[in-house]
Amino acid sequence: MIKKIEGFIRENIAAYKYGGAIIGISGGIDSAVAGKLLVEALGKDKVYGLLLPERDSSPQTIKDSEFVCNYLNIDYKLIKITPMLRELGVYRLKPPSFWAPRALQNRYARGVWEKEAKRGYLSDLNTEGSIKFLESLAYYRTKHRIRMCTLYFEAEKRGWAVVGTTNKTEYRTGFYIKWGDDATDIEPIQHLYKTQVYEIAKELGIPEIIINKKPSPDIAPGITDEYALGLEYNDLDRILMKIEKNEDLSLENNAQVKKVIEILANVKYRNVRNLHL
Amino acid sequence: MIKKIEGFIRENIAAYKYGGAIIGISGGIDSAVAGKLLVEALGKDKVYGLLLPERDSSPQTIKDSEFVCNYLNIDYKLIKITPMLRELGVYRLKPPSFWAPRALQNRYARGVWEKEAKRGYLSDLNTEGSIKFLESLAYYRTKHRIRMCTLYFEAEKRGWAVVGTTNKTEYRTGFYIKWGDDATDIEPIQHLYKTQVYEIAKELGIPEIIINKKPSPDIAPGITDEYALGLEYNDLDRILMKIEKNEDLSLENNAQVKKVIEILANVKYRNVRNLHL
Repeated sequence: MIKKIEGFIRENIAAYKYGGAIIGISGGIDSAVAGKLLVEALGKDKVYGLLLPERDSSPQTIKDSEFVCNYLNIDYKLIKITPMLRELGVYRLKPPSFWAPRALQNRYARGVWEKEAKRGYLSDLNTEGSIKFLESLAYYRTKHRIRMCTLYFEAEKRGWAVVGTTNKTEYRTGFYIKWGDDATDIEPIQHLYKTQVYEIAKELGIPEIIINKKPSPDIAPGITDEYALGLEYNDLDRILMKIEKNEDLSLENNAQVKKVIEILANVKYRNVRNLHL
Repeated sequence: MIKKIEGFIRENIAAYKYGGAIIGISGGIDSAVAGKLLVEALGKDKVYGLLLPERDSSPQTIKDSEFVCNYLNIDYKLIKITPMLRELGVYRLKPPSFWAPRALQNRYARGVWEKEAKRGYLSDLNTEGSIKFLESLAYYRTKHRIRMCTLYFEAEKRGWAVVGTTNKTEYRTGFYIKWGDDATDIEPIQHLYKTQVYEIAKELGIPEIIINKKPSPDIAPGITDEYALGLEYNDLDRILMKIEKNEDLSLENNAQVKKVIEILANVKYRNVRNLHL
């Protein structure tokens, strides 16, 4: 599989005449794996990393991202997107959190989510709820869109491609930001479930410290992927694979299966795009 | 056709549970027509206009946009995106032009385009050329992407839809910004060629002052749509329609037909999106 992905990257970078590849490095496993595949496919000089933290990013994010860039041995640049978000008025929607201890921040963010997201992740997929909840959706989604603008600005100046890091679990469950992290030229791991990304990470020799991190969208303290989705990746992937292959689900937890089926039925609300006659 | 579009808008706003529609008003005919269709379909209270000028916008743009919003009788807000673009470093790529007379600016912008876009519009579609040309592409494309972020920020806070104004001529020739003005929820006029938008504009009673404006992307002084495309809309639409219907092209100007066919063959470079295994 690794050789196949590397060939796919090389072929498409050539076919569409890109000079190289730009990737946002988050310190998580997906961008580490995608970055490693890019370096193997194109050589480190054709890969450029962008670190795009903002006011609410975890302090650990920058450290881990720099660690990944150094591990990949690629050039990179840190661009704080905080000033752009501030100009747009994004931060006026939420009080600054820097003065509060991290544990308290965690409880606060989870409190808002639990109170306002009446149907959990389905409320997010459907952009439905109180004005306070809608504002928190606009708040975090805008960050991903401004990251996309920044990635394309740096890429187009060079005639390079923007590489995405969406995996198949995220892709199928709508766990991405429309016109944000899903707006890319090439997606090297979109065909791999999260649990498969872990397998490939081990094969590629990605450092344990990155593999062992709890996956998080880093949009608010305490909100991990699994917390937001309401399911653990092991269960989610196993059920998604069974649904994909039309396999027997009777041995699965009923509530989990129901949750996954509901998510799949609601992805269409996330994916409203260019409706036209 | 007008009734059909209005029904289409109403149905989809309801089906996807949007509270209303947000549209960027540019002062041009496309957003005036799309805005009018929205108002007829949803009522003026469910339509909100955003005016999103920046440093290089024509002084006429804001006046015409306010005129359109007043004609439509909708609420609107003006948000200057200049500070965000400045923070991103966009303006560092180009000298400020405010001190130069408009006619001189026109000559300058056209001079850069003519010198650097070796294959005219095809160079733009292919993102190919000197670093100076690539920088001018990144420069103007970023403006549209930041507009998109702003439209979605305002829309998602309210649970409203973002409405696009791409017409069929633009859609087929790739005359839009990837992940910029093409990133929308609903496209009421995407099935209408530019010349058909003019016909509908007259039926809808759009003011002559808007109908008679020379269409321009307002990205640089002197660069009109027809100048950038290298074809007049009348010729372009007639040839596109004949190609679509597989009609005889022998009475058309050979050079124009060749140009249109080349454009259609190169739209794939504009449309690189999420390539994956």
